[in-house]
Amino acid sequence: MDKIKVGIIGAGGYGGCGAVELLQAHPYAEIRALIDKQDVGKPISALYPHLTGFCDLPIVAPDTPDCPDDFQVVFFSTPDGVGQKGAASWLEKGVKVIDYSGDFRFNDLETYHGYAARIGKDPNHASPWLLARSVYGLAELHRADIARSDLVGNPGCFAVSCILGLAPAVQSGIIEKGSIICDAKTGVSGAGKTPNPAFHYPARYDAMNAYRISGHQHVYEVERELGLVAGEEIRITFTPHVVPLCRGILTTLYASLKEGQTLRQVEEAYRSFYKGEAFVRVFGPETPQVSTNVRGSNFCNLSLNVDERTGKLIVVSLIDNLVKGQAGSAVQNMNIMFGLDETAGLLHPGIYP
Amino acid sequence: MDKIKVGIIGAGGYGGCGAVELLQAHPYAEIRALIDKQDVGKPISALYPHLTGFCDLPIVAPDTPDCPDDFQVVFFSTPDGVGQKGAASWLEKGVKVIDYSGDFRFNDLETYHGYAARIGKDPNHASPWLLARSVYGLAELHRADIARSDLVGNPGCFAVSCILGLAPAVQSGIIEKGSIICDAKTGVSGAGKTPNPAFHYPARYDAMNAYRISGHQHVYEVERELGLVAGEEIRITFTPHVVPLCRGILTTLYASLKEGQTLRQVEEAYRSFYKGEAFVRVFGPETPQVSTNVRGSNFCNLSLNVDERTGKLIVVSLIDNLVKGQAGSAVQNMNIMFGLDETAGLLHPGIYP
Amino acid sequence: MDKIKVGIIGAGGYGGCGAVELLQAHPYAEIRALIDKQDVGKPISALYPHLTGFCDLPIVAPDTPDCPDDFQVVFFSTPDGVGQKGAASWLEKGVKVIDYSGDFRFNDLETYHGYAARIGKDPNHASPWLLARSVYGLAELHRADIARSDLVGNPGCFAVSCILGLAPAVQSGIIEKGSIICDAKTGVSGAGKTPNPAFHYPARYDAMNAYRISGHQHVYEVERELGLVAGEEIRITFTPHVVPLCRGILTTLYASLKEGQTLRQVEEAYRSFYKGEAFVRVFGPETPQVSTNVRGSNFCNLSLNVDERTGKLIVVSLIDNLVKGQAGSAVQNMNIMFGLDETAGLLHPGIYP
Amino acid sequence: MDKIKVGIIGAGGYGGCGAVELLQAHPYAEIRALIDKQDVGKPISALYPHLTGFCDLPIVAPDTPDCPDDFQVVFFSTPDGVGQKGAASWLEKGVKVIDYSGDFRFNDLETYHGYAARIGKDPNHASPWLLARSVYGLAELHRADIARSDLVGNPGCFAVSCILGLAPAVQSGIIEKGSIICDAKTGVSGAGKTPNPAFHYPARYDAMNAYRISGHQHVYEVERELGLVAGEEIRITFTPHVVPLCRGILTTLYASLKEGQTLRQVEEAYRSFYKGEAFVRVFGPETPQVSTNVRGSNFCNLSLNVDERTGKLIVVSLIDNLVKGQAGSAVQNMNIMFGLDETAGLLHPGIYP
Repeated sequence: MDKIKVGIIGAGGYGGCGAVELLQAHPYAEIRALIDKQDVGKPISALYPHLTGFCDLPIVAPDTPDCPDDFQVVFFSTPDGVGQKGAASWLEKGVKVIDYSGDFRFNDLETYHGYAARIGKDPNHASPWLLARSVYGLAELHRADIARSDLVGNPGCFAVSCILGLAPAVQSGIIEKGSIICDAKTGVSGAGKTPNPAFHYPARYDAMNAYRISGHQHVYEVERELGLVAGEEIRITFTPHVVPLCRGILTTLYASLKEGQTLRQVEEAYRSFYKGEAFVRVFGPETPQVSTNVRGSNFCNLSLNVDERTGKLIVVSLIDNLVKGQAGSAVQNMNIMFGLDETAGLLHPGIYP
Repeated sequence: MDKIKVGIIGAGGYGGCGAVELLQAHPYAEIRALIDKQDVGKPISALYPHLTGFCDLPIVAPDTPDCPDDFQVVFFSTPDGVGQKGAASWLEKGVKVIDYSGDFRFNDLETYHGYAARIGKDPNHASPWLLARSVYGLAELHRADIARSDLVGNPGCFAVSCILGLAPAVQSGIIEKGSIICDAKTGVSGAGKTPNPAFHYPARYDAMNAYRISGHQHVYEVERELGLVAGEEIRITFTPHVVPLCRGILTTLYASLKEGQTLRQVEEAYRSFYKGEAFVRVFGPETPQVSTNVRGSNFCNLSLNVDERTGKLIVVSLIDNLVKGQAGSAVQNMNIMFGLDETAGLLHPGIYP
Repeated sequence: MDKIKVGIIGAGGYGGCGAVELLQAHPYAEIRALIDKQDVGKPISALYPHLTGFCDLPIVAPDTPDCPDDFQVVFFSTPDGVGQKGAASWLEKGVKVIDYSGDFRFNDLETYHGYAARIGKDPNHASPWLLARSVYGLAELHRADIARSDLVGNPGCFAVSCILGLAPAVQSGIIEKGSIICDAKTGVSGAGKTPNPAFHYPARYDAMNAYRISGHQHVYEVERELGLVAGEEIRITFTPHVVPLCRGILTTLYASLKEGQTLRQVEEAYRSFYKGEAFVRVFGPETPQVSTNVRGSNFCNLSLNVDERTGKLIVVSLIDNLVKGQAGSAVQNMNIMFGLDETAGLLHPGIYP
Repeated sequence: MDKIKVGIIGAGGYGGCGAVELLQAHPYAEIRALIDKQDVGKPISALYPHLTGFCDLPIVAPDTPDCPDDFQVVFFSTPDGVGQKGAASWLEKGVKVIDYSGDFRFNDLETYHGYAARIGKDPNHASPWLLARSVYGLAELHRADIARSDLVGNPGCFAVSCILGLAPAVQSGIIEKGSIICDAKTGVSGAGKTPNPAFHYPARYDAMNAYRISGHQHVYEVERELGLVAGEEIRITFTPHVVPLCRGILTTLYASLKEGQTLRQVEEAYRSFYKGEAFVRVFGPETPQVSTNVRGSNFCNLSLNVDERTGKLIVVSLIDNLVKGQAGSAVQNMNIMFGLDETAGLLHPGIYP
């Protein structure tokens, strides 16, 4: 079989780099072109020297004669607002699209407007007719739809950790749905590649903080997805924090258990929900999960705990924000969209320490 | 005025080092002896070379002829179980005692038993008759009692961050008292000086985790103190996390606001409660507080937020675990116990970056 | 005595922040104005919130009516090129000037041209007539001249660590002068406050590198100073490295010992040279010096070693780049220029861990 | 072809973990048993949870009935002194041996004695008759001998960085051989898995230091190997430093160029020496090499610089101490010993950021 040809738009950012790391060793896919507006002409290995000898393709500018377009799939590893402008023309040519941003995470304009308002973007969507066609790219919840789709909105990193950590509880009805609190801690790589006073090394050293309290845009997709699982509207309280490490999201999820629910029922709900899933590992309360357990890998580790004194379910959800939270989910979605083994190119344990 | 003579027992640990840093520059107190069982005979500046020239006193063994005892106050900078054995004899000599551990944080044996069970210690207390005499050393809540006392149980670091962050809300009655969730993130220095596999540098690098979920021993004193403020029993859900920085505790505190309560009322409750306090700074939601804002200082910074969609109060509480969470509170208590200016020796902003 | 009134130009950077930290607690000096072109109108404590309550002066724009000018000394905490334009008018008013940059580190135009070429600056100097009047602000070598001067060029951070680490060896004639190699490792705060791709947190995490190999501009002042001490021209090989910590410079200095020289003679040379110095501590080879031993303080720690197999002197020189390498030296110079106790406001041990 | 069966002795340490990470995905080798004295009975994935699902073999105790012995090769991932006791019996059974320690890095007892004295070990060797049979496992210098050998002494991590960085200069005769200085900076993982006061997280945070100045044991193998390349005795000055990152060694190598030698000749010497090498990348001075360029990979990156003012060659040599400095070299040696593609299982770029 010929390998699937992949074009990566926005290749120069961390999300592009992550896709290159995975795809350069993928058994059934190959990188055909790396597209970006910055650093045109430079090999990707000049931007990311660890890739030297693994991928030395040059960055090409979009919409130029020398930019290849014979792809079977395009990754838009781009900020909000880019994919929505470019996706339609690729889809018309029969090229599948996976977008990393919020552009295709919502299926109707109204929800998109709420999301766009949160991030201070133009509420208008450049291709609103595509919204109904797009699928939310969280394989564990939408595998069948992803397989049938040619347009996938890759989920937000915080959203992956929250949704995977809460879906079984919401679906099984063991928690009070109005009681959900999500306290997320992310490494700094989630902020992307562009320098910024808040992520300047000395400013971030020995430093942690909460931010966008009750106002983070990923809340939208978490509530939408949990609502779909629950069959009713769900609201969550969500507080993101930045902690001074590089990779990883640890989200501590709190909800009130319904009367009579115990750890055993919690464990049953989660193990049953994730039965057969390659990338979700469920643990009981006995072993604290450390973020390095998933660093560099596509896994989500969940540890289940019950505070019997207060009747709270406490789930600790761990992912690598740049893998399961971004490029790894994108490759997992690509595998599903092309009928490949879902785990192809994704079974790496990461390194330790 | 002669300076107050201070003896520090357990001087070789981080808590002792922190006390030396503060006391070597204190205008009205001086270190008379540094007592420990380890490193006897070495100057403290051999253990902590930054102190060279500032404090070069040798470590002396306890209960030896060359160990001075002409103190006016003794700091027990020791683990649980030590102060309760030693305090009585100092008190008999008229020496005031400030203990860093849980030995004197509780005023009755029953509560102490619950606490001791949590940390796997002998439930027996070596000097139970002293419990009723001891005062919980959180100056913002017990200033008058501390001033009258000769035996103070210095508060736990997590407890300081939770109690200061919640007391005004609990007292003013603006929150539902059963709804409190405390999500704490601590730097690694809180684990103390003794090496340990979990705090070995490579194991902790790029790593974060939750631990003792629903089972941390500081819960006891938080519930006791909030209960006293509320005038009724309070239970909290508390999850501590370790994040890879050195100094600082950031606790995100969640509670359901009562119907009709708004940010304005929250701000009023907090500003009123902490009016005149030297070491508590109250901020609104506009400015995210970063842990370096309090690093190296005795301040607690609180930022107040309301999630209007879910009706939650979200308070972010920041301290330096080794200062306001330990040695700084101890010195603040000493100042109060001796009728000194409460801020003496404690007004340092820390350094940045 | 009235306190000395200090104006800080370029107050918003790390060098300004460091000066504020020291001066807000200085017994004989006070900050009269904080001047900068950015963040005008904001209190310095909005930029550096740890200063809240210690210094809340607003940033004022230079050369505006509301900018005070009744200073006795001005700190130019500014990049190369600023002080040389502004110094003359302050000097004319009788205001002393301490400049952090290379503008006044050299006493003749020719040397300045070499320096300027290295940093890609205009070789012209805006006030060349001031060069001969300026004094190089390393107190341990130029105390008497600093005391008589009203214009001091504060030394470069790397230069402080190299010069203090080598001057005794060069002066005493125990080393071969052509054999000096300086291998410097700096924390990231030396790069200043402005965000930059190389110092973006994720890019710097778990990362170290050499840079400007054989081309760093501080080489000029090291060679000039060592040449003055030696009474003949000296050339050094100097390689700076960035390592992922915040504060500190560790420079490992290598030189061939002359035939017959031993550790004992080395120790004598250094102890004699630094006899009575408040801020230089000399150690033998027995105790490795860790950068935290000087973090947050104005000390330079030197440890002296001899490799008998190869006849090399190996000196490890440690400073905090933001204190002895910048603001601390500036305050030390101010103390000397005004006839104050040289250590006033500078005797802090820093904090640990 | 059946996969090569590998036994790993000392599997529970970082060196064992590194071997498992590489071997679990190796196309031609498989892990047959994980042997250690600690944590017997636990799956390796309980010690290193990132391996869950990739390798869950239990730790077995050595010399017990249930410990497999049908290996084709044994890795002694053990401290000095262990391999020398165990190697002989495996070799007698026809099992090849790769030892991580200094036990088999030297071919005669005299050199071993010098090495053992440095690390404070018993100068006696448990199997001195094997020393002449062993080969120093640096493939780039001893490939043919490794291929013929059944006993390989894997090189020390610092030694790899020094030897690869200097061998071409020494061989080509472009430098003065008495002038070599090696200034090495290592991440903390090089200290291994056992907790220790010096590598306790708070003690290491924001901290760097030199250690074992002129006394590190790796000097022996560097001098021996460079001597072999040069055809005459070589002495080096070597200073190791610990910097607060996890993975990586950056060694800055200094030597005086002979009269008339220029960067061009340096580049030719290095490119020629490493022509065809899969794991050594040679760079000119234009691009500073950052340690993350080799993190998680088996590469050694060398950047070549000449200081024309002082006539010094300055080579910056980068490796990941746990890969090319340990487990990666071991797997590379195994590949060579079994006639496999030398790069099998080793072509990973690592991850970034």
